[in-house]
Amino acid sequence: MTVRNPVAPRAASEVKSYDIETDVLIVGYGCAGACAAHEAATAGAEVLVVDRAGGPGGASAMSGGEIYLGGGTPIQRACGFDDSPEQMAAFLVAALGPGADQQKIAHYSEHSVEHFHWLVDRGVPFKPSLWDAPAWVPPTDDGLMWLGENSWPFTELATPAPRGHRPTANDFGGKLLLDCLVHATESVGVTAQYDTYVTNLILDADGAVVGVVARRYGRELTIRARRGCVLSTGGFIDNDDMLAAHAPRLLGHTKVSAGTDDGSGIRIAQAAGAAVRHMSAGQVGASLIPGFAARGIIVNNRGQRFVNEDTYPGRIGQAALFRQDMNVWVVLDEQGYEEVPERERWGVRPTHVAESVDELDELVALPPGALAASITRYNEFASRGTDPDFHKAQRWLRPLTPPLAAIDIRAGVRPPSESGDRRGTGASVFTLGGLHTTLDGQVLDLNGSPIPNLFAAGRASSGLHGEGYISGTSLGDGTFFGRKAGAAAARNKAHT
Amino acid sequence: MTVRNPVAPRAASEVKSYDIETDVLIVGYGCAGACAAHEAATAGAEVLVVDRAGGPGGASAMSGGEIYLGGGTPIQRACGFDDSPEQMAAFLVAALGPGADQQKIAHYSEHSVEHFHWLVDRGVPFKPSLWDAPAWVPPTDDGLMWLGENSWPFTELATPAPRGHRPTANDFGGKLLLDCLVHATESVGVTAQYDTYVTNLILDADGAVVGVVARRYGRELTIRARRGCVLSTGGFIDNDDMLAAHAPRLLGHTKVSAGTDDGSGIRIAQAAGAAVRHMSAGQVGASLIPGFAARGIIVNNRGQRFVNEDTYPGRIGQAALFRQDMNVWVVLDEQGYEEVPERERWGVRPTHVAESVDELDELVALPPGALAASITRYNEFASRGTDPDFHKAQRWLRPLTPPLAAIDIRAGVRPPSESGDRRGTGASVFTLGGLHTTLDGQVLDLNGSPIPNLFAAGRASSGLHGEGYISGTSLGDGTFFGRKAGAAAARNKAHT
Repeated sequence: MTVRNPVAPRAASEVKSYDIETDVLIVGYGCAGACAAHEAATAGAEVLVVDRAGGPGGASAMSGGEIYLGGGTPIQRACGFDDSPEQMAAFLVAALGPGADQQKIAHYSEHSVEHFHWLVDRGVPFKPSLWDAPAWVPPTDDGLMWLGENSWPFTELATPAPRGHRPTANDFGGKLLLDCLVHATESVGVTAQYDTYVTNLILDADGAVVGVVARRYGRELTIRARRGCVLSTGGFIDNDDMLAAHAPRLLGHTKVSAGTDDGSGIRIAQAAGAAVRHMSAGQVGASLIPGFAARGIIVNNRGQRFVNEDTYPGRIGQAALFRQDMNVWVVLDEQGYEEVPERERWGVRPTHVAESVDELDELVALPPGALAASITRYNEFASRGTDPDFHKAQRWLRPLTPPLAAIDIRAGVRPPSESGDRRGTGASVFTLGGLHTTLDGQVLDLNGSPIPNLFAAGRASSGLHGEGYISGTSLGDGTFFGRKAGAAAARNKAHT
Repeated sequence: MTVRNPVAPRAASEVKSYDIETDVLIVGYGCAGACAAHEAATAGAEVLVVDRAGGPGGASAMSGGEIYLGGGTPIQRACGFDDSPEQMAAFLVAALGPGADQQKIAHYSEHSVEHFHWLVDRGVPFKPSLWDAPAWVPPTDDGLMWLGENSWPFTELATPAPRGHRPTANDFGGKLLLDCLVHATESVGVTAQYDTYVTNLILDADGAVVGVVARRYGRELTIRARRGCVLSTGGFIDNDDMLAAHAPRLLGHTKVSAGTDDGSGIRIAQAAGAAVRHMSAGQVGASLIPGFAARGIIVNNRGQRFVNEDTYPGRIGQAALFRQDMNVWVVLDEQGYEEVPERERWGVRPTHVAESVDELDELVALPPGALAASITRYNEFASRGTDPDFHKAQRWLRPLTPPLAAIDIRAGVRPPSESGDRRGTGASVFTLGGLHTTLDGQVLDLNGSPIPNLFAAGRASSGLHGEGYISGTSLGDGTFFGRKAGAAAARNKAHT
């Protein structure tokens, strides 16, 4: 049986010789790949990491660096918070659903404190101080942050504890995290080769993965992996065909990636029979400035509120894109605006300013009286310290007093292709769906059986996620299940 | 290379002999399968249809029977409507998106009048009269109905014309439609075998489909298909594992199917390398009684309106499930209730009745004052004949006057597993995602190349659909692309 498409696996019988041989091959050198490589090497395997780019990094290195950790880490305890694996899991099942992987979440939560220590032992620094307001990336070096745990409806589902652990950096911490992991990986003898794009798996007669075909500077290369192959190639936000087929709502927005998340690992595994999950799911970073939003209200293009503004900004982003088609405004007053420190404003200024509610209503061209009605209702309840509609926490409730400002979310992030246009889509997105894996990172086929010697971690897999997302769960499940996958691959009996 | 899972294709080299041989094999005898069989047979091929059930039917036979046809059919013209393929396509691209298949829609719209005549020539009766109100299934034998074309935002995107063509029946017309198609198919010499569940494709050394493996009463059976195999096996609403992986929001609701939509055709094709599209998409039939809804308002659990109540009910259903988590109420007044003829009420009665807006507000336990505010706003604009928020058509706008009634949508349809519970989920669902096909119904692999001799139609394919849905597009694309697939399979050179 010849498979007819270029991503299809090659039969080992057709491969005359291998250009490179190793025990465990890691494809993709972001955080998941680094952790997989490290654990495979410390388990005694010879390990090679290849990456299509000229060095390690991927989307991990561009990220904020948050890792979702809890269950009672030293950082949580130092900041005065009790936590348990059960409460952490209860939050994650709710926040990452519908369709969250409950078994993976339970396992991940149970081993979270151990994973924290493992990261610290690899040199990842976390400062024991809390950033205590909704934010994408706090402008401080605080090592702990809330990611929606203290917002409704999660407050009713699990005991709140902050679990966003941030490597100590006065900015995006992803680069620092990656540097630590790469350094640790190199120190245990892992080698890396770059500019190497893996195009196909090689399967033996039993359907086991024995290596890969790759391309380097136009030349085909075969790599033998005696014990296993870990795909940590990232998601597919850079593949518009895949988006059109699976996640059309993510098309046209700013892509969060290093430009190499083309789903190649997902596709070569699918071509070998692998199953995928939740391919329509996406993280949505809305450029609404969480500090502004929590102090004001967020409304849709009928002037209606639709979410509690103090929750995790990604939850607001998903609601904005999937439920409101990004027709979203933030409305706040002068006090709210001024309360947000300059450094947290990211340069965002109101797109509309008005002396009265009615004037603002007219300015932003929502249906007549709609915004005014929402503000009146919000103010009435806020003055009583309650929000019966969306349960925003009391600390963020304060009647809005004119002059008022509105921020058109679409004035924010804009896709690179429209860089001449001042008005973007307001959303930065990446994909959450991917390969279906076991707790050991084994890739499962369409019937739920592992494909021998094939592993995946990071956003090449669907990991913990259903349709929901919380910052830190991607670096979190990538590093954690990356470790598991690397260790499991190293345990495999070597193919001869 | 041995594939390791039960749905994986079998190598032809492993098949010693075939129990049955035919030119074209059709798997699944619903409307799509019947049309494929008919056209393959009239093109001169020997055709066998197999179905896992004891007779033809599938979900088609249980449906309302609506077929989405337009571009100027005799029924449209007799009812006084002009239409064009371009306007039809413009509507469908908007209604079936995001992610609708524009190429398929253009082709389908262009050939719609021809397809109408083909159906009529096969004995499908359409009465030239219009049912002129939102409805799931009109209680009359009218042959034409609106499916949202005359509602916002479609009125701004395409010239409205009704395109829901209904076989003449005083009830669900799906059975009649199927009977006509099966009779026509038998009359051109197609044979059928039942209780035959296809479990695997058989591929030759070039990756071409040469037959299938099936199970009948526990015995394995091999069927050779010299020219091609058409998968018309339906969607996957009966496969909870597939729902959990791809469409978790559809879990737990009433399944619209004959109980056999387990995605088997999709999975055996995927195992042979086939690509799928839009697996998260679903039709959502909300039990909200369109006649009531159009005369009243629909609100979410914050008392907010969220859609124009006069649009296609399935559009409301999708908004209710995907955007409001089915926390939805219909509110109407006595006049509105009485205006809906008894036979259109489907036995539904208000779950809450109140003498005043405030009383109703309290009764239905929405946030205080929320419903009252929505009704006040709606009434104010309705009295002026306008709806600036959702653009409900003027004919349905009338201030609501107490006494008022509310209908909890969840009091409606309930899943069979909870039949003891009077409160259901309010939604009846089926899947829209499936195999990626060409205009000729050829199944495409992960790289967009046809898998030789493999075809699909109906809900085993994603057909016209992105994430949206309109009644009649499923029977519509199933019958139309079923015909194309059967004809294309018959044109194939016979395998020897």
